[in-house]
Amino acid sequence: MVGHFRGIDHPSAGQHKSSDMNKRYSLGLDYGTNSCRSLLVDLETGEELGSTVFNYPSGESGILTDSRDPNIARQNPQDYLDGMVAIITGALDQAKKSDREFDSERVVGIGVDTTGSTPIPVNADGTPLGLLEEFRSDLHAMVWLWKDHTAHEEAGEITNLAAKEHPEYLAKCGGAYSSEWFWSKILRLKRVAPKVFVAAHSFVEHCDWIPAVLSGNTDPGRTARSVCAAGHKAMFNASWGGLPAKNFLTKLDPDLGTLRDRLYSRALSSDQLAGRLSPNWAKKLGLKPGIAIAVGAFDAHMGAVGAGIKEGTLVKILGTSTCDLMIHPNQQPLADVPGLCGVVDGSVLPGYFGLEAGQSAVGDIFLWFVNHLVPDSYGGTPAAKFENMERALAVQKPGETGLLALDWNNGNRTILTDVRLSGMILGQTLHTKAHEIYRALIEATAFGALTIINRFEEFGVKVEEVINTGGLAVKNPTLMQIYADVLGRPMKVSRSGQTCALGAAIFGAMAAGAVDSGFDSVPDAQRALCRIQETVYEPDRRRHSTYARLYGLYRQVHDAFGTATWSGRVNHVMKELIAIREEQRMA
Amino acid sequence: MVGHFRGIDHPSAGQHKSSDMNKRYSLGLDYGTNSCRSLLVDLETGEELGSTVFNYPSGESGILTDSRDPNIARQNPQDYLDGMVAIITGALDQAKKSDREFDSERVVGIGVDTTGSTPIPVNADGTPLGLLEEFRSDLHAMVWLWKDHTAHEEAGEITNLAAKEHPEYLAKCGGAYSSEWFWSKILRLKRVAPKVFVAAHSFVEHCDWIPAVLSGNTDPGRTARSVCAAGHKAMFNASWGGLPAKNFLTKLDPDLGTLRDRLYSRALSSDQLAGRLSPNWAKKLGLKPGIAIAVGAFDAHMGAVGAGIKEGTLVKILGTSTCDLMIHPNQQPLADVPGLCGVVDGSVLPGYFGLEAGQSAVGDIFLWFVNHLVPDSYGGTPAAKFENMERALAVQKPGETGLLALDWNNGNRTILTDVRLSGMILGQTLHTKAHEIYRALIEATAFGALTIINRFEEFGVKVEEVINTGGLAVKNPTLMQIYADVLGRPMKVSRSGQTCALGAAIFGAMAAGAVDSGFDSVPDAQRALCRIQETVYEPDRRRHSTYARLYGLYRQVHDAFGTATWSGRVNHVMKELIAIREEQRMA
Repeated sequence: MVGHFRGIDHPSAGQHKSSDMNKRYSLGLDYGTNSCRSLLVDLETGEELGSTVFNYPSGESGILTDSRDPNIARQNPQDYLDGMVAIITGALDQAKKSDREFDSERVVGIGVDTTGSTPIPVNADGTPLGLLEEFRSDLHAMVWLWKDHTAHEEAGEITNLAAKEHPEYLAKCGGAYSSEWFWSKILRLKRVAPKVFVAAHSFVEHCDWIPAVLSGNTDPGRTARSVCAAGHKAMFNASWGGLPAKNFLTKLDPDLGTLRDRLYSRALSSDQLAGRLSPNWAKKLGLKPGIAIAVGAFDAHMGAVGAGIKEGTLVKILGTSTCDLMIHPNQQPLADVPGLCGVVDGSVLPGYFGLEAGQSAVGDIFLWFVNHLVPDSYGGTPAAKFENMERALAVQKPGETGLLALDWNNGNRTILTDVRLSGMILGQTLHTKAHEIYRALIEATAFGALTIINRFEEFGVKVEEVINTGGLAVKNPTLMQIYADVLGRPMKVSRSGQTCALGAAIFGAMAAGAVDSGFDSVPDAQRALCRIQETVYEPDRRRHSTYARLYGLYRQVHDAFGTATWSGRVNHVMKELIAIREEQRMA
Repeated sequence: MVGHFRGIDHPSAGQHKSSDMNKRYSLGLDYGTNSCRSLLVDLETGEELGSTVFNYPSGESGILTDSRDPNIARQNPQDYLDGMVAIITGALDQAKKSDREFDSERVVGIGVDTTGSTPIPVNADGTPLGLLEEFRSDLHAMVWLWKDHTAHEEAGEITNLAAKEHPEYLAKCGGAYSSEWFWSKILRLKRVAPKVFVAAHSFVEHCDWIPAVLSGNTDPGRTARSVCAAGHKAMFNASWGGLPAKNFLTKLDPDLGTLRDRLYSRALSSDQLAGRLSPNWAKKLGLKPGIAIAVGAFDAHMGAVGAGIKEGTLVKILGTSTCDLMIHPNQQPLADVPGLCGVVDGSVLPGYFGLEAGQSAVGDIFLWFVNHLVPDSYGGTPAAKFENMERALAVQKPGETGLLALDWNNGNRTILTDVRLSGMILGQTLHTKAHEIYRALIEATAFGALTIINRFEEFGVKVEEVINTGGLAVKNPTLMQIYADVLGRPMKVSRSGQTCALGAAIFGAMAAGAVDSGFDSVPDAQRALCRIQETVYEPDRRRHSTYARLYGLYRQVHDAFGTATWSGRVNHVMKELIAIREEQRMA
């Protein structure tokens, strides 16, 4: 890509003039599971001038739970608003206080990413029901966080009906519709809280709502909808005319059919404008009114862009869960890949299918383990425990623990698309230590990662490079080396610690347009702003060969407990245990 | 049973005269895995006048280990001698210091139980090689503790050869010869430490050695051998002329054939005299020379007697591992029960087959868990952690944890007789707490216990009553209630906290003879001395019905991973993991 405008003085391609007159910045807002954070980027140099984190104050680390049902995971929309103000003003303040010259008038755009599918029931004004006095103590009126798993029965119904009447719906989302997704959650809401459902005029995704708020377009009829959220989670596809057919939704529940008319018929990629910053918010935030607000998308998809995704590059976003993203030119044929979470045109980059896979829990498994099962002899804080366990396990050889785990504490997203699975560990003796189990859990997530790569390649999507990003990639070299050894591939790590927010900032710039941002395409911006770390984790041949044997065992256990078509006697054990648990807790 | 002598003044049957002139006492010595303890019993009233514990000072809680091989578990014979003096003199001192009149001249006998198979290589004098300067730092010259699992390959060879040439040998020990047993360990020793093997004139079981020491009969040719140890662990059976045929042993290794001549051709039940207390030891210990020393036996077998075993009564000894014992009249037909550890005439009571089953680890699994995987938020000490976890899990309903575990951290003794298995837990979510896993581990051991009861009954040995004894039975009411609910039977608990030592004391009295002890049979002594606690744990019908469903799932997983004939793909996973672990640790 050569020849593009770089701003008001139109320099020639490739030249980056550094006079302050040419400075322009973009803000990326990244809403995670427990906190949100901002990144203020210099679009010329890639310098990160400010970044603030806001931990959601509600519930347990921002998650509203219910001890009677561990599947419930909700959020308070007020946390998102409070966080928005805190992280934007925080980043601007940092930049102002820095040695660098900084003028907040030169922020040209804002991009937003969030978790998903994280639908918010809203009234006709677009106000989340959870903000209304009437519903303030009703968990069902709150935001249904991505990892809420209450809707597993509804997911089964949707999958069954689609299999019978619209198999094409399933083909684009890996063969099964998930309890984590839009329609499962809404159908569940209708059933468990009909009053809340009636009060909900419409539903918006978290990633649609923040741009809508910033641009004053909260009227659900006017809110710009993300094709990333719509395509990956709501079975939206231009080829069948947008959302699933009214007839199909009506069969699930007549009220879903009616709701369809109050949702949307168009969805946009994130290089598009969701709106322009409202004067009201501009004043509150200290920004210029009218700057570009990009259409939102999911954290992983923007993270992939911030990490430098391109054809042949798998970007792994390693956090509490993982997202594994690849792209494929939308003009080239692509088989439907079973077990993928979704294949959506434009969800990552315009002109490409976004291919999304993932693991339902990675960092979350380690956090669970350190919080609940690691004695204080390893350290007084979770951070110290992690550090000391990593030191102890780093010197062990593959297979030396004798342990084998499944990474399913939160279900399996790819390749089984089944939330009604659970964790497993075997091989314990009377000598097994906590750090050995931690090693086995890391290895289990690596085996899960390998299963995803194999699935991509089995269906013709060649993985030529793996770039890792997210907290675990940056902070855990022991884990990265195990991943390199298990996967038998070099592990690259993106240099920015805030790849999602960087991707969001890139889309903020794209929405501002070439004149204001200096970039005329996403790849152009990526070349200027995305870097990988110098350290690349190389696989060791001997360790990889031991891991190849262990992976064979992992697959045996994976298939025995996870594969519905397996003819053995253990494939329903996890599901029956979950059913009994639910009966007993409800009794 | 009526009419028997009660001592020097020959009172009529049933009358227990309490003048001090008639007082007589017996001492029981109980050698466990980490410590030994004594019990001094008043044979008239059953009162326990003294009891002392001695913790073995060597190694880790008395166990000599090697970090390169977790299968190694050895002991220092010096610990046994030091313990013998400490616990005998300790108990006598306690009795003397008590308010009661006590005369150590009136101790009529000593009985001894130990772990097993715990063979000791000895020289021609009967001195354990581990006590000789030359071998003091050689782990192979030490005592091979019951839970040493290094000889799994040798166990396999013995099983294979016996299956081919002498299936009758296997029929009496559950269908497979174990790595925990006598010949496996000796064959292993020959291979890994030929110099030690050559220096070993003979081998004695721990339970043979202590009576030999006390009575001055350490010459291996004169040492009285326990039929309990010989029959359950060395394939000794009168029906085929004692130890396995010389020809059979020679095929395993010519040196085993030669060794056979330096072992024994006769083995005795514990009501028999091993010898009489030597003047030398009498002086050191403060006892009358010449008192009866009973033939030794294993802790569990004597524990069963101390707990009140009779036909139809299953005695469960719940400790670090469990032993499950029943008896069956030796005149009545009895099928060979697959998976039982052994069927030996006279090993528990004269005139009955002793039927031994067991679980390789029960308390050991809980100790492993509390020591390695329970955070300090549950308490500052293992005891406090146990207590707080038990409080938290006691209010949970069956199935509420959603967890399922296998109790195989130390292999499976009954019904699979396979040490190359490992622990397993499944059902973990991101919310699973340590006390829930502890509950799942307790339940796993209860499911293992149920599997044993079912096996007894499938082969015609009806279980009409269950009496529990051992530390866990006495100290853990939460565990006992779970056992009652899982097994669907009342759980009785023996009143003495020292059932093994009480059983040993009973045999000390039996060896002294009716005139000196006042008892003319073991059942007669049991009626006088054995009691159960008033609290009986009754099963709850609803909880039992949920556990019946969970047990179905346990059996599916048990069979999938544990049954060699299972046609699935996971049945070798545990074994392959162990093989890879060993390769990596040795590499």
